[in-house]
Amino acid sequence: MSFLHHIAVCNKHDLSNFLPFVVAGKQVGWVKHGFAARLKEYKDAFSVSGDRVSLAPGLDNYDDRTRAVDSVLRKLVDQGLIWGWRGEYYPVGTSFAGPHLMEMERAAIPFFGIRAYGIHVNGFVRDGADIHMWIARRSGGKQTFPNELDNMIAGGQPVGISLQENVIKEAWEEAAVPADLAARAHLVSEVSYCQETEHFLKPDVLFNYDLELPAEFVPNNTDGEVAEFFLWPMDKVMEVVENTDDTKFNCNLVIIDFCIRHGLIEPEQPDYQALVQGLRTVL
Amino acid sequence: MSFLHHIAVCNKHDLSNFLPFVVAGKQVGWVKHGFAARLKEYKDAFSVSGDRVSLAPGLDNYDDRTRAVDSVLRKLVDQGLIWGWRGEYYPVGTSFAGPHLMEMERAAIPFFGIRAYGIHVNGFVRDGADIHMWIARRSGGKQTFPNELDNMIAGGQPVGISLQENVIKEAWEEAAVPADLAARAHLVSEVSYCQETEHFLKPDVLFNYDLELPAEFVPNNTDGEVAEFFLWPMDKVMEVVENTDDTKFNCNLVIIDFCIRHGLIEPEQPDYQALVQGLRTVL
Repeated sequence: MSFLHHIAVCNKHDLSNFLPFVVAGKQVGWVKHGFAARLKEYKDAFSVSGDRVSLAPGLDNYDDRTRAVDSVLRKLVDQGLIWGWRGEYYPVGTSFAGPHLMEMERAAIPFFGIRAYGIHVNGFVRDGADIHMWIARRSGGKQTFPNELDNMIAGGQPVGISLQENVIKEAWEEAAVPADLAARAHLVSEVSYCQETEHFLKPDVLFNYDLELPAEFVPNNTDGEVAEFFLWPMDKVMEVVENTDDTKFNCNLVIIDFCIRHGLIEPEQPDYQALVQGLRTVL
Repeated sequence: MSFLHHIAVCNKHDLSNFLPFVVAGKQVGWVKHGFAARLKEYKDAFSVSGDRVSLAPGLDNYDDRTRAVDSVLRKLVDQGLIWGWRGEYYPVGTSFAGPHLMEMERAAIPFFGIRAYGIHVNGFVRDGADIHMWIARRSGGKQTFPNELDNMIAGGQPVGISLQENVIKEAWEEAAVPADLAARAHLVSEVSYCQETEHFLKPDVLFNYDLELPAEFVPNNTDGEVAEFFLWPMDKVMEVVENTDDTKFNCNLVIIDFCIRHGLIEPEQPDYQALVQGLRTVL
């Protein structure tokens, strides 16, 4: 295995398996052919042709689009075509900054191949020149990626909350980091990838924060989503990422990016350029 | 003008104006059609066909390639087809880490569209939550981009010296930064671009370092390449980058990258995603 293995895993996709998903004349995502076929019967919300999935005529504003699509999504959940309803809404548009054209339940976002945004926080402790990183193991009860290793703090970015507010909220829920300490987290880079799965496409962007923690701070999960935390020297973190699939697929990229920014993977290493380029995939 | 303007300036190119430049069966660059035609007569070094420029048969090792090409380059300088000889050699290969296939005089590198690497150091001072950045104005006597604004420390990456050694060397030459202070510079990111000019192509990579300086440190040029230094608040640095072409073309990208990494350009701004993606161009 290798660091590049994880870049490849996160970027495996074949867009010929998808139809563009178009809202208000703008492509905002990708829908698998099989899923598109199932949307055909919901003519109040969707218009499916041979070359695209768009919204039904007349859905010309944010609220109407959101309501019409949401109503169908709930039926698709009942049919088992979508699963893991979160009751959390993500913005739909062509860029993070907006303007946004509608919002959609988080669980449905990848089925429409809509770009999701997340915040990932590298919580770390310095010991002289050495760095130790806090790594979380996800709860066995999580709907997605149970028991896998994860960044200390991470979460999707829903509507109605700023990135900074989300970092502070997730830092408290996942690791009991007090707000004044969490506010020291700095947005330092961005990782993007595009992963096809059996059912959908994730062309996602992760906003990466670095949070240097005092040595005496110990994270403590408050929302049941984390089973345990480890404080590992970077050698061990890197060994686990490089040689195993124990870490949630996209968290590998966040850790590789951290290693590059902190001089732990260097330009003189053969894969360096491929890693740097591979951490940002433009769809 | 805008930050995106500088991304566009650095990435304007049309590869149909070029032939691939191939060494040892691997493409390592791009040559303009007109320049390729001038290489045809130097059959000891080059083989020019309708679809590529390669090296003459028999040039099968690093030293032979370097010598044969260098001999021609010196003639091209005499003819005024290449200018600005530096007496500094750059590696030629398909990646920074190597293996390298030959080396070539720095002045000729863009004429063969070979990727050049450089180190750029953001020298900055914190004042509470505010950041001030040291900006250099290039000497009026520089062969390239005289009088333009520049990063505090920057230089090309020649053969035979590590990135870290180069940072320390350039920091002394350009700004009289003592080695122990320069060694605090951290490689924090990478910017890449691909710019076509009338005569050549620059598909280059800049390794960006952050160097936080004590407030009392004042840079002092020792090699005549810098006319003066300014310590500007980031508001002013950003205003100059956003609204003028006063800064050397690729240094704009280094400063934009710094602003993104230090929270001065934020994801909520309309151009953010385009800037982040635009700072890394894969050729």
